Amino acid sequence: MALRVGVVGASGYTGAELLRLLAGHSGLELAIATSREFAGRDIASVYPNLTAYAGRPFDHLAPAALEALDLVFLALPHGASMSLGAQLAAAGTRVVDLSADFRLTDAAAYPEWFGAAHTAPEWLGKWAYGLPELHRDEIKGHQTVANPGCYPTAALLALAPLAAAGLIEPDGIVINAASGVSGAGRGVTAGVHFSHVDANFKAYSVTGHKHTPEIEQELSRMSGADVHVTFVPHLLPMPRGLLATCSAKLALGVPPEAVPAAFVERYDREPFVRVTAEPPETKYTTGSNVCLVWAAADLRTGRATAIAAIDNLGKGAAGQAIQNANLMLGLPETLGLPSEGIYP
Amino acid sequence: MALRVGVVGASGYTGAELLRLLAGHSGLELAIATSREFAGRDIASVYPNLTAYAGRPFDHLAPAALEALDLVFLALPHGASMSLGAQLAAAGTRVVDLSADFRLTDAAAYPEWFGAAHTAPEWLGKWAYGLPELHRDEIKGHQTVANPGCYPTAALLALAPLAAAGLIEPDGIVINAASGVSGAGRGVTAGVHFSHVDANFKAYSVTGHKHTPEIEQELSRMSGADVHVTFVPHLLPMPRGLLATCSAKLALGVPPEAVPAAFVERYDREPFVRVTAEPPETKYTTGSNVCLVWAAADLRTGRATAIAAIDNLGKGAAGQAIQNANLMLGLPETLGLPSEGIYP
Amino acid sequence: MALRVGVVGASGYTGAELLRLLAGHSGLELAIATSREFAGRDIASVYPNLTAYAGRPFDHLAPAALEALDLVFLALPHGASMSLGAQLAAAGTRVVDLSADFRLTDAAAYPEWFGAAHTAPEWLGKWAYGLPELHRDEIKGHQTVANPGCYPTAALLALAPLAAAGLIEPDGIVINAASGVSGAGRGVTAGVHFSHVDANFKAYSVTGHKHTPEIEQELSRMSGADVHVTFVPHLLPMPRGLLATCSAKLALGVPPEAVPAAFVERYDREPFVRVTAEPPETKYTTGSNVCLVWAAADLRTGRATAIAAIDNLGKGAAGQAIQNANLMLGLPETLGLPSEGIYP
Amino acid sequence: MALRVGVVGASGYTGAELLRLLAGHSGLELAIATSREFAGRDIASVYPNLTAYAGRPFDHLAPAALEALDLVFLALPHGASMSLGAQLAAAGTRVVDLSADFRLTDAAAYPEWFGAAHTAPEWLGKWAYGLPELHRDEIKGHQTVANPGCYPTAALLALAPLAAAGLIEPDGIVINAASGVSGAGRGVTAGVHFSHVDANFKAYSVTGHKHTPEIEQELSRMSGADVHVTFVPHLLPMPRGLLATCSAKLALGVPPEAVPAAFVERYDREPFVRVTAEPPETKYTTGSNVCLVWAAADLRTGRATAIAAIDNLGKGAAGQAIQNANLMLGLPETLGLPSEGIYP
Repeated sequence: MALRVGVVGASGYTGAELLRLLAGHSGLELAIATSREFAGRDIASVYPNLTAYAGRPFDHLAPAALEALDLVFLALPHGASMSLGAQLAAAGTRVVDLSADFRLTDAAAYPEWFGAAHTAPEWLGKWAYGLPELHRDEIKGHQTVANPGCYPTAALLALAPLAAAGLIEPDGIVINAASGVSGAGRGVTAGVHFSHVDANFKAYSVTGHKHTPEIEQELSRMSGADVHVTFVPHLLPMPRGLLATCSAKLALGVPPEAVPAAFVERYDREPFVRVTAEPPETKYTTGSNVCLVWAAADLRTGRATAIAAIDNLGKGAAGQAIQNANLMLGLPETLGLPSEGIYP
Repeated sequence: MALRVGVVGASGYTGAELLRLLAGHSGLELAIATSREFAGRDIASVYPNLTAYAGRPFDHLAPAALEALDLVFLALPHGASMSLGAQLAAAGTRVVDLSADFRLTDAAAYPEWFGAAHTAPEWLGKWAYGLPELHRDEIKGHQTVANPGCYPTAALLALAPLAAAGLIEPDGIVINAASGVSGAGRGVTAGVHFSHVDANFKAYSVTGHKHTPEIEQELSRMSGADVHVTFVPHLLPMPRGLLATCSAKLALGVPPEAVPAAFVERYDREPFVRVTAEPPETKYTTGSNVCLVWAAADLRTGRATAIAAIDNLGKGAAGQAIQNANLMLGLPETLGLPSEGIYP
Repeated sequence: MALRVGVVGASGYTGAELLRLLAGHSGLELAIATSREFAGRDIASVYPNLTAYAGRPFDHLAPAALEALDLVFLALPHGASMSLGAQLAAAGTRVVDLSADFRLTDAAAYPEWFGAAHTAPEWLGKWAYGLPELHRDEIKGHQTVANPGCYPTAALLALAPLAAAGLIEPDGIVINAASGVSGAGRGVTAGVHFSHVDANFKAYSVTGHKHTPEIEQELSRMSGADVHVTFVPHLLPMPRGLLATCSAKLALGVPPEAVPAAFVERYDREPFVRVTAEPPETKYTTGSNVCLVWAAADLRTGRATAIAAIDNLGKGAAGQAIQNANLMLGLPETLGLPSEGIYP
Repeated sequence: MALRVGVVGASGYTGAELLRLLAGHSGLELAIATSREFAGRDIASVYPNLTAYAGRPFDHLAPAALEALDLVFLALPHGASMSLGAQLAAAGTRVVDLSADFRLTDAAAYPEWFGAAHTAPEWLGKWAYGLPELHRDEIKGHQTVANPGCYPTAALLALAPLAAAGLIEPDGIVINAASGVSGAGRGVTAGVHFSHVDANFKAYSVTGHKHTPEIEQELSRMSGADVHVTFVPHLLPMPRGLLATCSAKLALGVPPEAVPAAFVERYDREPFVRVTAEPPETKYTTGSNVCLVWAAADLRTGRATAIAAIDNLGKGAAGQAIQNANLMLGLPETLGLPSEGIYP
């Protein structure tokens, strides 16, 4: 019998992707799907692609009903999960929060990077950081999991084999990443107008993107040093897909062949991470929960380049959230998660 | 226990889409996947999106091995299925042919529209035309099925409720359709160079597209008249998706409300055809086997406009082929076929 | 010495395209460029592509100042030009209005197609319809010109050689057209979100687009019959470019070769219309004032297909407006107008 | 009277862009336009966007005729200019070579980076490096100019204000750049198939792109150190546009405000380089010869980020070539060069 789950914020892009994946998940049953904007409206009229939900309306938010579920996904904007997340956590409900609200352990980082103090700081550090490839065992036993951001997912999967093994210097890491437009959400602004975005490329939030402290927290944790990174996100003229290109100085005496070898060793048995023969392309991950990684050392410059490709709504958000839910609920980790991207 | 199937021409776009869908099909098992170009090479190295096939190479073509399978999909270029299709048919093997080679009943149409005589004309008319929404019962009992073209699938699903019920005049039908670039196949030509296709739109094969006789054959069959249509295909700057916009003169005395009503009545219980409230958009069908349809009458001009949207590789090719295979093999018609498109 | 012109509504897409073209026009000097939203802000900060205007702010609207100019372009939304257009016309100022407000001669068409009565109906029929290839002589002597819509420009240039010469029946004309997203303007809605539009195609306003009466007015005028057309616009996943694919029944006894011949004859000496050897592609017109046309007859169906491609912001709006201004002001018709599209 | 110029390799993307710009250049007249593939064919039939050249065929290559011209543009693949460039140089003809064949001063770099020894090494170091913003005076007096690559143009314009002023450390510079597909040329390969490139992003030539030595040569020259850079190019799903995002360690004691100040000071009077208020977007440069630049220092990491956006076929190739030709021929530097990008 399927476990009953809820999706709060089900009409955003990430919420709708959760609904799409849940429609094909044999172990989870969608009991509640809330939307402030569309409550009462047929899901399939708002998202005509979700034909499985024809005749089923979006729900109003009712926290008590959520507490009774086996697990709740919070797909809300940053800041909006703090209160509900704390309430569900206190009620003993399993929660996967897809916002940044419980990802950082240091309460001081919230005013610095998000512009406002955390309203439930007592919970910081008590949620597991939901990157299964780094923290699988911790996630398995946890009631509450903070699902990583899309950029940190790619950057950390690209850098982990090197940083955790001490193959790179923790200082001077440069991460250039680029995301499809769906990463900015369903909200309508001049910056997402088709005519503006199409055939266009730019960097944004160059010296202060909200995902920076999350990347630094996890890199510091795995390398045992106080890591500061240069992280520059870019906007791609495509709906889905995210690439992180990471550059780091090789540690003294590291032979070049140690770099790709570290990737094979680290990810050999991972169901959703594949080491590719060529630099990965985002398109191969579309619609899937797969991360493709690749790395090489350049003796001429003494630096390593490590690259990861994901679907920002898949492994970068909804797919990874379901992977975490599977682990938390004792289901097979891969259940209901596509490992085949749509191509072309 | 899963039935064993083969895909001949598995490295083209349609073949690869069959592999993607078969990876998630619990009733069918891929036994053979041939590729002239890539035989011996790992499927996942040619299509890194197909991670389920990592370690499994493409096969060489061996007709005898195909004959022993429960069903064979032929995903070959037009003309290339004639001989192998006839051989498998004679051997009693179930076949779904995705080319045009067995779609037409009139042998004279092949030299006229395809430039060469048919080499196995004795089989014409003996294969079922595999549009389940028109010929479901015939397909169920058939050993050999000719899978419709992508344009005919959309045009016929848009026109069937009107033509079969006599709501439109058979004369003067105009079909404007547009397809994503994957419809042209994986071959590399100047016409599919990204820099040429992007932000570009054009009509092609304006007075002689190969799908015309197929549309006319089926419209003639359902309307009992000798139908000739104006069919103008266009190329869209996108990989997948196909829209057919059909215009026909209303029959004398047909009230405007009869037009949308005919669609609801016809498609109400169809698992893969949805009548939409607004003109359909191709994007909602991406990666699925769904066809979205819509129609309206315009009293001012005395004409009806009927529109259908599909994924040309889904309901327009590989998805429909599996739908046919399910019917032929006595499996549930919807098994293994996604009804949720990927969006955005 | 350059003539002094103004652009009202200079911060919309059409207005900005006028500014871009005026920057390279040696006979016209931009004296006033108004914007309600951006008055006072540097033009090059709102449109960083318009580097020639760095340091020059958008102006507030001041009708008296406009009256003193040699010519005023009105690039306002439909309905917003009625009052100012009538005021400038009364003041004797030369005006090119890019909205639909003065295109129709029949006042009754405004409530029917635009939802509101015209507020200056006394001016209808007194503005020239600014399609130079049809009405060049009339435009030359006129003080006020209504610039055609983008769809009518393409449809009329495609159909004129056939309709004016009586080669097609006026009944049963079907026009399928498709436009890039910039045709919908700079306004931000869910319908122009990049993630929604990209890799998507749809029809819209299927039985009631505002450009229909304009097409019918001009076709009726040139064919001497009361023409009603089926006009179905579509939205393309690209910023610029518009294609009109027109189908009409051949008049009795018209030989097929008369169709392409009519195009060569009609457009042989036109500076901005080119008859192409193959069906035209929109991309070749990007950024230019060129219209590419092509036509063929199909004896099998007894119908002709005529196709025109333009840049909806070029020949479909700002380019044509400048072409009209050149004619009105006695300048060389081609002055300042690019005949080379940007490719790829 | 216009000076007579030739374009060798006029049917490639860069050659065709030269033809487009020359059509609007009042000081230069196209005398010869060679194409190996299309000699004898009408230019406007191969490039229907180039309507100005209707009736004019591509020419066969005849070196003697080229020698008699005022200036020759060589738009050939890398390696193909060596011999003809040397021949024209020896004949005293002015040449702008758009390949890499005369950009490097060190002959040893050719076998290392291009896989083959230089066949005319005696000319290396005798051609000016044609980046006018760095070497304007040298270009003015020169007979032969090597036009920079698209990536080096952007990277050097982004880094020059910092490197030349000693504001950054020469060690550990990381350049991530991304280019539209036209940068790969008109040749047709699986890697430029629309269905593959659309909605896709990847890095390529990660540790050995041919533009690396050119960037290092010029950075070494301006900083007086032996600079090695990490340069990672990426492929964007768009036809034109190139962005270089450069990261470098701030030199000891450099205050953050010195970084943007250096850009304003350096580029204040440059006609084609604009310092933007926000990180630049490639789209604003489409079709123009403009480079948009922006930079900021991040005290948290001690590094500066400098970004440049260009049209890879404009300032990154054909536009810059004409800028160089103007300088070499004593014409106004900006003559015939658009400073307005096409937007949207």
